[in-house]
Amino acid sequence: MPGIVECVPNVSEGRRGEVIDRIADAVRATDGVRLLDRTSDVDHNRSVITFAGPADAVEAAAHALVAAAFAEIDMRTHRGEHPRLGAVDVVPFVPLAGTTMDECVAIAHHFGRAVAERHDVPVYFYARAATRPERTRLPDIRKPQYEGLAAAMASTHAPDAGPSRIHPAHGAMVTGARPPLIAFNIELDTTDVALAKRIAKEIRESSGGLPAVQALGFGLTDPPRAQVSMNLLDTSVTSLARVWREVEERAREAGVRVLRGELIGLMPLDASLQVTADALRLEGLARDRIIEAHFLE
Amino acid sequence: MPGIVECVPNVSEGRRGEVIDRIADAVRATDGVRLLDRTSDVDHNRSVITFAGPADAVEAAAHALVAAAFAEIDMRTHRGEHPRLGAVDVVPFVPLAGTTMDECVAIAHHFGRAVAERHDVPVYFYARAATRPERTRLPDIRKPQYEGLAAAMASTHAPDAGPSRIHPAHGAMVTGARPPLIAFNIELDTTDVALAKRIAKEIRESSGGLPAVQALGFGLTDPPRAQVSMNLLDTSVTSLARVWREVEERAREAGVRVLRGELIGLMPLDASLQVTADALRLEGLARDRIIEAHFLE
Repeated sequence: MPGIVECVPNVSEGRRGEVIDRIADAVRATDGVRLLDRTSDVDHNRSVITFAGPADAVEAAAHALVAAAFAEIDMRTHRGEHPRLGAVDVVPFVPLAGTTMDECVAIAHHFGRAVAERHDVPVYFYARAATRPERTRLPDIRKPQYEGLAAAMASTHAPDAGPSRIHPAHGAMVTGARPPLIAFNIELDTTDVALAKRIAKEIRESSGGLPAVQALGFGLTDPPRAQVSMNLLDTSVTSLARVWREVEERAREAGVRVLRGELIGLMPLDASLQVTADALRLEGLARDRIIEAHFLE
Repeated sequence: MPGIVECVPNVSEGRRGEVIDRIADAVRATDGVRLLDRTSDVDHNRSVITFAGPADAVEAAAHALVAAAFAEIDMRTHRGEHPRLGAVDVVPFVPLAGTTMDECVAIAHHFGRAVAERHDVPVYFYARAATRPERTRLPDIRKPQYEGLAAAMASTHAPDAGPSRIHPAHGAMVTGARPPLIAFNIELDTTDVALAKRIAKEIRESSGGLPAVQALGFGLTDPPRAQVSMNLLDTSVTSLARVWREVEERAREAGVRVLRGELIGLMPLDASLQVTADALRLEGLARDRIIEAHFLE
């Protein structure tokens, strides 16, 4: 079996259930691909579809998703709180077991050019697939939004592929390659939300903490408890084990125990092996030391 | 993809390289199966072949291995230190991701009956596939050895399948189902081998320690260091994380640091997920939370 690629498109429809169903069904109908998750937000009017499989199958499923979304979503009537450029707003490709970041960059470029060609839509390459530094961060690309993109295209926003004019109904699309994202929370044995907020601030990259870590402190209600809620954007830079220790140490200094971890959604195999290696003080735990992983490549 | 089964046959040939090659090649030539390891011991005159794959492919490969071994090994001339009953001495089937112990018991029974029929060889079912309590432990079944089996068959050793007489060239075969075995060592930051031996004695099942744990203390030479060397026979009973903590705690009480863990060979996915869940205090980490595991079942 060839390696696995994950794809996490964000589409600009989060309210019409039957439309989201048809978009998800287009992915599900693609041979070799597994639909792993779909989450819709009514206020954002936006859905995140998560699927994975061998590279060819994933690229085919992404095309099927684009065709289904373009058939149903018209940006001229789309309203929602979340920033967006188009009906299929962003399509990240993520390397998992047996694939590399370079392969996902190549898939993103190939896929983006094909969508631009087939649908006459301007396409931008972001993250590891960016072809210029100012296109690395998604918020920078998305800043003018659908409504302001036509004007921006004349200056900063020349597309990486496709026509130099926005598509009235579909808008524009962003695609690229990035490491897997892990959503992970840690519950503290306290109701002191200020402590969770302080720890979050100390460990997150934006306040000078750990690279590739986003963190916020929250209060849970039932039972009442403080929680540090995190996104790990690249566990090859900052691992789950490191984050766990940094939170635990800061909690302990405040006389508070760490109660439990919580994984939101799924995690990639390699991130789990990294935690295992850390806990057993192995000098790394390569994927080929896991019996079943031999059947993934 | 269907679930994965591991098979770890022990054959009574550890000296003639070209014979062991032909036995391993018979496995390698079976579609869908991966040969994971082969280890031969000259003194024992015995080889362990490890392979895995979907259940049907693994059973086919086990038959191919039996045919190759029976064509090459004659027990009338076999000498070796390790106890054995036949040319293919024991064939354990092990459930990995996506298969259950019950399925492996069924495979062992089906495979054992087919070998008995095809090759006119008496077959015994052991471990979880045993059909009577006194057949659970392999040493009990193997006690008469090849040389004494003909006599024992009249009393205690009526076979579970096949003829009630030993095959002159092939002897008898044992097959069954058991949990995965993990060989794992822990190095201590000391040259005090007596400490490693004491810890090993305290944690192993045979001296009243942790269930499903075998342990010995050793001295390594380069660099000189004490090591606790273990076999974990069932991590659903005693996990790697538990063993790590028990060793670490005892070392610490003696004022000694644990230096590192060492995994010998491969480990199953579930054992690694168990360690990850323990380290991150997750309330379990089911296989379906690992993205790639969706492509194993």
